[in-house]
Amino acid sequence: MNVRDEFKPLTVQPQEIEAKSFSIITDELGAHPFTDEQFPIVQRVIHASADFELGRSLVFHPDAVKAGIKAIREGRAIVADVQMVQSGISKPRIARYGGDVHVYISDQDVATEAKALNTTRAILSVRKACEMHAGAIFAIGNAPTALLELIRLIKEGLTKPSLIVGVPVGFVSAAESKEELLKLDIPYITNRGRKGGSPVAVAAVNALSLLADAQGR
Amino acid sequence: MNVRDEFKPLTVQPQEIEAKSFSIITDELGAHPFTDEQFPIVQRVIHASADFELGRSLVFHPDAVKAGIKAIREGRAIVADVQMVQSGISKPRIARYGGDVHVYISDQDVATEAKALNTTRAILSVRKACEMHAGAIFAIGNAPTALLELIRLIKEGLTKPSLIVGVPVGFVSAAESKEELLKLDIPYITNRGRKGGSPVAVAAVNALSLLADAQGR
Repeated sequence: MNVRDEFKPLTVQPQEIEAKSFSIITDELGAHPFTDEQFPIVQRVIHASADFELGRSLVFHPDAVKAGIKAIREGRAIVADVQMVQSGISKPRIARYGGDVHVYISDQDVATEAKALNTTRAILSVRKACEMHAGAIFAIGNAPTALLELIRLIKEGLTKPSLIVGVPVGFVSAAESKEELLKLDIPYITNRGRKGGSPVAVAAVNALSLLADAQGR
Repeated sequence: MNVRDEFKPLTVQPQEIEAKSFSIITDELGAHPFTDEQFPIVQRVIHASADFELGRSLVFHPDAVKAGIKAIREGRAIVADVQMVQSGISKPRIARYGGDVHVYISDQDVATEAKALNTTRAILSVRKACEMHAGAIFAIGNAPTALLELIRLIKEGLTKPSLIVGVPVGFVSAAESKEELLKLDIPYITNRGRKGGSPVAVAAVNALSLLADAQGR
Protein backbone atom coordinates (compact mmCIF):
# COMPACT_ATOMS: atom_id res chain seq x y z
CA MET A 1 0.00 0.00 0.00
CA ASN A 2 1.26 3.46 -0.75
CA VAL A 3 0.04 6.97 -0.17
CA ARG A 4 -1.88 7.03 -3.42
CA ASP A 5 -3.88 3.84 -2.90
CA GLU A 6 -7.02 5.50 -1.70
CA PHE A 7 -8.65 7.74 -4.29
CA LYS A 8 -11.49 9.16 -2.26
CA PRO A 9 -13.58 11.49 -4.38
CA LEU A 10 -14.96 14.54 -2.60
CA THR A 11 -18.48 14.50 -1.26
CA VAL A 12 -18.35 18.24 -0.54
CA GLN A 13 -16.91 20.56 -3.19
CA PRO A 14 -14.66 23.50 -2.27
CA GLN A 15 -17.22 25.98 -3.68
CA GLU A 16 -19.88 24.52 -1.36
CA ILE A 17 -17.53 24.93 1.61
CA GLU A 18 -17.01 28.57 0.71
CA ALA A 19 -20.73 29.17 0.32
CA LYS A 20 -21.40 27.51 3.68
CA SER A 21 -18.66 29.61 5.33
CA PHE A 22 -20.08 32.83 3.91
CA SER A 23 -23.56 31.95 5.12
CA ILE A 24 -22.22 31.25 8.66
CA ILE A 25 -20.39 34.59 8.58
CA THR A 26 -23.50 36.53 7.54
CA ASP A 27 -25.59 34.82 10.24
CA GLU A 28 -23.12 35.27 13.07
CA LEU A 29 -22.12 38.82 12.18
CA GLY A 30 -25.71 40.04 12.45
CA ALA A 31 -26.21 43.80 12.38
CA HIS A 32 -23.23 45.75 11.03
CA PRO A 33 -22.41 49.24 9.79
CA PHE A 34 -21.21 48.27 6.29
CA THR A 35 -22.85 49.12 2.95
CA ASP A 36 -23.89 46.43 0.47
CA GLU A 37 -20.90 47.43 -1.63
CA GLN A 38 -18.46 47.00 1.30
CA PHE A 39 -19.96 43.84 2.75
CA PRO A 40 -18.34 41.29 0.37
CA ILE A 41 -14.94 42.61 1.46
CA VAL A 42 -15.79 42.39 5.15
CA GLN A 43 -17.09 38.87 4.59
CA ARG A 44 -13.89 37.75 2.87
CA VAL A 45 -11.71 39.28 5.59
CA ILE A 46 -13.66 37.37 8.25
CA HIS A 47 -13.44 34.23 6.10
CA ALA A 48 -9.64 34.56 6.02
CA SER A 49 -9.23 35.26 9.73
CA ALA A 50 -12.23 33.64 11.43
CA ASP A 51 -12.20 36.85 13.44
CA PHE A 52 -15.41 38.86 13.69
CA GLU A 53 -13.74 41.52 15.82
CA LEU A 54 -11.24 42.11 13.03
CA GLY A 55 -14.05 42.21 10.45
CA ARG A 56 -15.95 44.78 12.50
CA SER A 57 -12.81 46.92 12.85
CA LEU A 58 -12.65 47.58 9.11
CA VAL A 59 -13.13 51.17 7.94
CA PHE A 60 -13.78 52.17 4.32
CA HIS A 61 -13.28 55.53 2.69
CA PRO A 62 -16.61 56.21 0.91
CA ASP A 63 -14.96 55.92 -2.53
CA ALA A 64 -12.80 52.89 -1.72
CA VAL A 65 -14.73 50.03 -3.29
CA LYS A 66 -15.57 51.86 -6.52
CA ALA A 67 -11.99 53.12 -6.83
CA GLY A 68 -10.55 49.64 -6.24
CA ILE A 69 -12.78 48.01 -8.82
CA LYS A 70 -12.04 50.75 -11.34
CA ALA A 71 -8.27 50.45 -10.79
CA ILE A 72 -8.33 46.68 -11.25
CA ARG A 73 -10.39 46.99 -14.42
CA GLU A 74 -7.94 49.60 -15.73
CA GLY A 75 -5.07 47.16 -15.15
CA ARG A 76 -3.37 49.33 -12.54
CA ALA A 77 -0.40 47.79 -10.74
CA ILE A 78 -0.93 46.26 -7.33
CA VAL A 79 1.98 46.82 -4.94
CA ALA A 80 2.34 44.44 -1.98
CA ASP A 81 4.49 45.37 1.00
CA VAL A 82 5.74 41.82 1.55
CA GLN A 83 6.05 38.54 -0.35
CA MET A 84 3.24 36.88 1.63
CA VAL A 85 0.76 39.48 0.38
CA GLN A 86 2.06 39.11 -3.18
CA SER A 87 1.72 35.30 -2.93
CA GLY A 88 -1.84 35.39 -1.68
CA ILE A 89 -3.35 37.74 -4.24
CA SER A 90 -5.17 35.87 -7.01
CA LYS A 91 -3.19 36.67 -10.17
CA PRO A 92 -5.42 35.44 -13.03
CA ARG A 93 -8.25 37.84 -12.15
CA ILE A 94 -5.77 40.73 -12.07
CA ALA A 95 -3.97 39.70 -15.25
CA ARG A 96 -7.24 39.56 -17.16
CA TYR A 97 -7.24 43.37 -17.12
CA GLY A 98 -3.51 43.73 -17.73
CA GLY A 99 -2.54 44.22 -14.08
CA ASP A 100 0.20 42.53 -12.08
CA VAL A 101 1.24 42.25 -8.44
CA HIS A 102 4.62 43.74 -7.52
CA VAL A 103 6.76 43.51 -4.41
CA TYR A 104 10.04 45.36 -4.01
CA ILE A 105 11.09 44.70 -0.42
CA SER A 106 13.55 41.94 -1.34
CA ASP A 107 15.15 43.81 -4.25
CA GLN A 108 18.89 44.16 -4.01
CA ASP A 109 18.89 47.92 -4.72
CA VAL A 110 16.31 48.45 -1.99
CA ALA A 111 18.39 46.48 0.54
CA THR A 112 21.62 48.26 -0.41
CA GLU A 113 20.07 51.70 -0.21
CA ALA A 114 18.28 50.96 3.08
CA LYS A 115 21.58 49.99 4.64
CA ALA A 116 23.35 53.07 3.26
CA LEU A 117 20.63 55.40 4.53
CA ASN A 118 20.04 53.62 7.85
CA THR A 119 16.37 53.21 7.09
CA THR A 120 14.05 50.26 6.43
CA ARG A 121 13.67 48.24 3.27
CA ALA A 122 9.92 48.77 3.71
CA ILE A 123 10.30 52.54 3.34
CA LEU A 124 12.58 52.31 0.30
CA SER A 125 10.38 49.72 -1.39
CA VAL A 126 7.45 52.15 -1.13
CA ARG A 127 9.56 54.90 -2.72
CA LYS A 128 10.58 52.54 -5.53
CA ALA A 129 6.96 51.47 -6.10
CA CYS A 130 5.81 55.11 -6.27
CA GLU A 131 8.46 55.88 -8.87
CA MET A 132 7.51 52.86 -10.96
CA HIS A 133 3.73 52.86 -10.85
CA ALA A 134 1.29 55.75 -11.12
CA GLY A 135 -2.14 55.19 -9.62
CA ALA A 136 -1.33 51.82 -8.12
CA ILE A 137 -3.29 49.88 -5.52
CA PHE A 138 -1.10 49.49 -2.42
CA ALA A 139 -1.70 46.42 -0.28
CA ILE A 140 0.14 46.84 3.01
CA GLY A 141 -0.37 44.03 5.51
CA ASN A 142 2.74 44.18 7.63
CA ALA A 143 4.98 47.18 7.73
CA PRO A 144 3.68 50.30 9.52
CA THR A 145 6.76 52.16 8.22
CA ALA A 146 5.69 51.38 4.64
CA LEU A 147 2.23 52.80 5.29
CA LEU A 148 3.61 55.89 7.05
CA GLU A 149 6.03 56.56 4.19
CA LEU A 150 3.22 56.22 1.65
CA ILE A 151 1.12 58.69 3.66
CA ARG A 152 4.04 61.13 3.76
CA LEU A 153 4.53 60.94 -0.02
CA ILE A 154 0.80 61.50 -0.59
CA LYS A 155 0.71 64.49 1.76
CA GLU A 156 3.66 66.01 -0.07
CA GLY A 157 1.84 65.53 -3.37
CA LEU A 158 4.50 63.15 -4.70
CA THR A 159 2.22 60.20 -5.37
CA LYS A 160 -1.48 59.44 -5.67
CA PRO A 161 -2.46 55.77 -5.44
CA SER A 162 -5.85 54.58 -6.71
CA LEU A 163 -6.49 52.78 -3.44
CA ILE A 164 -4.61 51.99 -0.24
CA VAL A 165 -5.41 48.74 1.51
CA GLY A 166 -3.55 49.59 4.70
CA VAL A 167 -3.88 46.92 7.37
CA PRO A 168 -0.51 46.45 9.11
CA VAL A 169 -0.57 44.26 12.21
CA GLY A 170 1.40 44.68 15.41
CA PHE A 171 2.08 46.28 18.75
CA VAL A 172 4.29 49.20 17.78
CA SER A 173 3.06 51.84 15.27
CA ALA A 174 0.55 49.62 13.45
CA ALA A 175 -2.59 51.14 15.01
CA GLU A 176 -1.05 54.62 14.87
CA SER A 177 -0.17 54.30 11.16
CA LYS A 178 -3.78 53.35 10.41
CA GLU A 179 -5.12 56.34 12.34
CA GLU A 180 -2.93 58.53 10.11
CA LEU A 181 -4.38 56.86 7.03
CA LEU A 182 -7.91 57.56 8.30
CA LYS A 183 -7.13 61.28 8.22
CA LEU A 184 -6.51 61.27 4.43
CA ASP A 185 -9.20 61.99 1.89
CA ILE A 186 -8.09 59.32 -0.54
CA PRO A 187 -9.64 55.92 -1.21
CA TYR A 188 -8.55 53.53 1.56
CA ILE A 189 -9.58 50.31 3.24
CA THR A 190 -8.13 50.00 6.71
CA ASN A 191 -9.04 48.88 10.22
CA ARG A 192 -8.73 50.25 13.72
CA GLY A 193 -6.40 48.67 16.26
CA ARG A 194 -3.46 46.30 16.37
CA LYS A 195 -4.91 43.48 14.29
CA GLY A 196 -4.50 43.15 10.54
CA GLY A 197 -1.91 41.28 8.52
CA SER A 198 -1.17 39.71 5.14
CA PRO A 199 -4.35 37.59 4.92
CA VAL A 200 -6.46 40.70 5.55
CA ALA A 201 -4.75 42.65 2.78
CA VAL A 202 -5.01 39.64 0.48
CA ALA A 203 -8.69 39.05 1.27
CA ALA A 204 -9.57 42.68 0.54
CA VAL A 205 -7.78 42.70 -2.81
CA ASN A 206 -9.20 39.32 -3.84
CA ALA A 207 -12.71 40.45 -2.89
CA LEU A 208 -12.23 43.55 -5.05
CA SER A 209 -11.05 41.55 -8.06
CA LEU A 210 -14.08 39.27 -7.70
CA LEU A 211 -16.31 42.36 -7.69
CA ALA A 212 -14.44 43.69 -10.74
CA ASP A 213 -15.13 40.40 -12.50
CA ALA A 214 -18.78 40.41 -11.52
CA GLN A 215 -19.19 43.92 -13.00
CA GLY A 216 -17.75 42.67 -16.26
CA ARG A 217 -20.46 40.05 -16.70
CA MET B 1 11.34 67.40 -5.32
CA ASN B 2 10.97 63.68 -5.87
CA VAL B 3 10.13 60.72 -3.68
CA ARG B 4 13.77 60.20 -2.73
CA ASP B 5 14.49 63.72 -1.57
CA GLU B 6 14.05 63.07 2.09
CA PHE B 7 16.57 60.61 3.52
CA LYS B 8 15.29 60.32 7.04
CA PRO B 9 17.47 57.95 9.05
CA LEU B 10 15.67 55.79 11.57
CA THR B 11 15.51 56.85 15.18
CA VAL B 12 14.08 53.47 16.21
CA GLN B 13 15.66 50.33 14.78
CA PRO B 14 13.53 47.35 13.68
CA GLN B 15 15.18 45.14 16.35
CA GLU B 16 14.12 47.61 19.03
CA ILE B 17 10.55 47.55 17.72
CA GLU B 18 10.52 43.74 17.93
CA ALA B 19 11.94 43.81 21.46
CA LYS B 20 9.34 46.36 22.54
CA SER B 21 6.56 44.29 20.95
CA PHE B 22 7.70 41.13 22.74
CA SER B 23 7.82 42.95 26.06
CA ILE B 24 4.25 44.28 25.55
CA ILE B 25 3.11 40.74 24.69
CA THR B 26 4.69 39.23 27.80
CA ASP B 27 3.16 41.93 30.02
CA GLU B 28 -0.33 41.77 28.58
CA LEU B 29 -0.48 37.99 28.32
CA GLY B 30 0.14 37.59 32.04
CA ALA B 31 -0.35 34.09 33.47
CA HIS B 32 -0.39 31.35 30.83
CA PRO B 33 -0.16 27.57 30.64
CA PHE B 34 2.91 27.35 28.40
CA THR B 35 6.36 26.00 29.26
CA ASP B 36 9.51 28.11 28.88
CA GLU B 37 10.33 26.03 25.83
CA GLN B 38 6.95 26.72 24.21
CA PHE B 39 6.66 30.39 25.15
CA PRO B 40 8.84 31.88 22.37
CA ILE B 41 6.53 30.26 19.82
CA VAL B 42 3.40 31.59 21.54
CA GLN B 43 4.99 35.02 21.70
CA ARG B 44 5.80 35.04 17.97
CA VAL B 45 2.30 33.87 17.05
CA ILE B 46 0.80 36.74 19.06
CA HIS B 47 3.33 39.11 17.48
CA ALA B 48 2.15 38.04 14.01
CA SER B 49 -1.56 38.25 14.77
CA ALA B 50 -1.90 40.81 17.60
CA ASP B 51 -4.39 38.28 18.92
CA PHE B 52 -4.00 37.05 22.49
CA GLU B 53 -7.01 34.77 22.18
CA LEU B 54 -5.31 33.03 19.27
CA GLY B 55 -2.06 32.77 21.24
CA ARG B 56 -3.85 31.24 24.20
CA SER B 57 -5.57 28.71 21.92
CA LEU B 58 -2.25 27.09 20.96
CA VAL B 59 -1.68 23.48 22.03
CA PHE B 60 1.69 21.73 21.96
CA HIS B 61 2.40 18.03 21.93
CA PRO B 62 4.98 17.56 24.74
CA ASP B 63 7.72 16.62 22.23
CA ALA B 64 6.85 19.29 19.67
CA VAL B 65 9.46 21.96 20.30
CA LYS B 66 12.39 19.56 20.72
CA ALA B 67 11.31 17.59 17.64
CA GLY B 68 10.96 20.77 15.56
CA ILE B 69 14.39 22.09 16.54
CA LYS B 70 15.97 18.70 15.89
CA ALA B 71 14.34 18.39 12.46
CA ILE B 72 15.50 21.86 11.42
CA ARG B 73 19.04 21.14 12.61
CA GLU B 74 18.99 17.86 10.64
CA GLY B 75 18.02 19.78 7.50
CA ARG B 76 14.65 18.08 7.16
CA ALA B 77 12.34 19.43 4.47
CA ILE B 78 9.62 21.87 5.45
CA VAL B 79 6.39 21.40 3.52
CA ALA B 80 3.97 24.34 3.32
CA ASP B 81 0.35 23.80 2.34
CA VAL B 82 0.12 27.08 0.39
CA GLN B 83 2.40 29.64 -1.22
CA MET B 84 1.76 32.25 1.48
CA VAL B 85 3.21 29.95 4.13
CA GLN B 86 6.18 29.14 1.91
CA SER B 87 6.77 32.87 1.30
CA GLY B 88 6.71 33.79 4.97
CA ILE B 89 9.13 31.19 6.31
CA SER B 90 12.62 32.59 6.79
CA LYS B 91 14.80 30.64 4.33
CA PRO B 92 18.40 31.50 5.35
CA ARG B 93 18.02 29.99 8.84
CA ILE B 94 16.61 26.80 7.30
CA ALA B 95 19.18 26.61 4.53
CA ARG B 96 22.04 26.88 7.04
CA TYR B 97 21.26 23.27 8.03
CA GLY B 98 20.58 22.07 4.49
CA GLY B 99 16.80 22.35 4.67
CA ASP B 100 14.40 23.94 2.21
CA VAL B 101 10.74 24.95 2.10
CA HIS B 102 8.55 23.14 -0.40
CA VAL B 103 5.03 23.74 -1.65
CA TYR B 104 3.27 21.46 -4.13
CA ILE B 105 -0.28 22.81 -4.34
CA SER B 106 0.34 24.72 -7.57
CA ASP B 107 2.20 21.89 -9.32
CA GLN B 108 0.73 20.90 -12.68
CA ASP B 109 0.68 17.16 -11.87
CA VAL B 110 -1.16 17.87 -8.63
CA ALA B 111 -3.77 19.99 -10.43
CA THR B 112 -4.24 17.43 -13.20
CA GLU B 113 -4.60 14.51 -10.81
CA ALA B 114 -6.96 16.42 -8.50
CA LYS B 115 -9.26 17.09 -11.42
CA ALA B 116 -9.12 13.50 -12.63
CA LEU B 117 -9.90 12.13 -9.16
CA ASN B 118 -12.47 14.79 -8.21
CA THR B 119 -10.53 15.66 -5.09
CA THR B 120 -8.64 18.74 -3.87
CA ARG B 121 -5.18 19.92 -4.85
CA ALA B 122 -4.53 20.26 -1.12
CA ILE B 123 -5.01 16.51 -0.61
CA LEU B 124 -2.86 15.52 -3.56
CA SER B 125 -0.11 17.95 -2.62
CA VAL B 126 0.11 16.28 0.80
CA ARG B 127 0.42 12.87 -0.86
CA LYS B 128 3.13 14.17 -3.16
CA ALA B 129 5.02 15.72 -0.22
CA CYS B 130 4.84 12.46 1.76
CA GLU B 131 6.28 10.56 -1.19
CA MET B 132 9.10 13.04 -1.65
CA HIS B 133 10.18 13.81 1.92
CA ALA B 134 10.63 11.45 4.87
CA GLY B 135 10.42 13.03 8.32
CA ALA B 136 9.42 16.47 7.07
CA ILE B 137 7.98 19.36 9.05
CA PHE B 138 4.51 20.11 7.73
CA ALA B 139 3.28 23.68 8.05
CA ILE B 140 -0.44 23.78 7.30
CA GLY B 141 -2.07 27.18 7.70
CA ASN B 142 -5.05 26.98 5.40
CA ALA B 143 -6.42 23.74 4.10
CA PRO B 144 -8.26 21.50 6.57
CA THR B 145 -8.37 18.82 3.86
CA ALA B 146 -4.56 18.84 3.73
CA LEU B 147 -4.35 18.32 7.48
CA LEU B 148 -7.00 15.60 7.45
CA GLU B 149 -5.23 13.76 4.63
CA LEU B 150 -1.93 13.95 6.49
CA ILE B 151 -3.60 12.55 9.63
CA ARG B 152 -5.08 9.70 7.56
CA LEU B 153 -1.68 8.81 6.06
CA ILE B 154 -0.09 8.85 9.52
CA LYS B 155 -2.82 6.64 10.99
CA GLU B 156 -2.33 4.15 8.17
CA GLY B 157 1.40 4.09 8.87
CA LEU B 158 2.26 5.50 5.46
CA THR B 159 4.15 8.56 6.64
CA LYS B 160 5.73 9.92 9.80
CA PRO B 161 6.52 13.64 9.83
CA SER B 162 9.00 15.09 12.34
CA LEU B 163 6.49 17.75 13.32
CA ILE B 164 3.10 18.98 12.20
CA VAL B 165 2.33 22.65 12.57
CA GLY B 166 -1.38 22.32 11.89
CA VAL B 167 -3.26 25.59 12.19
CA PRO B 168 -5.84 25.84 9.38
CA VAL B 169 -8.29 28.74 9.68
CA GLY B 170 -11.95 28.77 8.80
CA PHE B 171 -15.59 28.01 9.44
CA VAL B 172 -15.93 24.57 7.87
CA SER B 173 -13.73 21.66 9.04
CA ALA B 174 -10.81 23.76 10.35
CA ALA B 175 -11.57 23.33 14.05
CA GLU B 176 -12.58 19.69 13.48
CA SER B 177 -9.34 18.87 11.63
CA LYS B 178 -7.32 20.28 14.55
CA GLU B 179 -9.30 18.19 17.06
CA GLU B 180 -8.32 15.12 15.01
CA LEU B 181 -4.67 16.19 15.13
CA LEU B 182 -4.89 16.53 18.92
CA LYS B 183 -5.76 12.82 19.13
CA LEU B 184 -2.45 11.75 17.57
CA ASP B 185 0.63 10.92 19.60
CA ILE B 186 3.05 12.61 17.23
CA PRO B 187 4.82 15.97 17.64
CA TYR B 188 2.35 18.73 16.74
CA ILE B 189 1.73 22.41 17.29
CA THR B 190 -1.90 23.32 16.77
CA ASN B 191 -4.68 25.45 18.22
CA ARG B 192 -8.28 25.00 19.20
CA GLY B 193 -11.08 26.73 17.30
CA ARG B 194 -11.65 28.41 13.98
CA LYS B 195 -8.74 30.82 14.05
CA GLY B 196 -5.30 30.09 12.62
CA GLY B 197 -3.87 30.85 9.18
CA SER B 198 -0.68 31.34 7.23
CA PRO B 199 0.93 33.90 9.58
CA VAL B 200 0.42 31.52 12.51
CA ALA B 201 2.09 28.61 10.71
CA VAL B 202 4.89 30.93 9.57
CA ALA B 203 5.40 32.40 13.06
CA ALA B 204 5.68 28.94 14.61
CA VAL B 205 8.23 27.70 12.08
CA ASN B 206 10.27 30.92 12.27
CA ALA B 207 10.29 30.76 16.07
CA LEU B 208 11.55 27.16 15.86
CA SER B 209 14.36 28.07 13.48
CA LEU B 210 15.43 30.90 15.79
CA LEU B 211 15.50 28.38 18.66
CA ALA B 212 17.51 25.98 16.48
CA ASP B 213 19.98 28.78 15.80
CA ALA B 214 20.22 29.73 19.47
CA GLN B 215 21.05 26.10 20.36
CA GLY B 216 23.87 26.16 17.84
CA ARG B 217 25.61 29.06 19.56
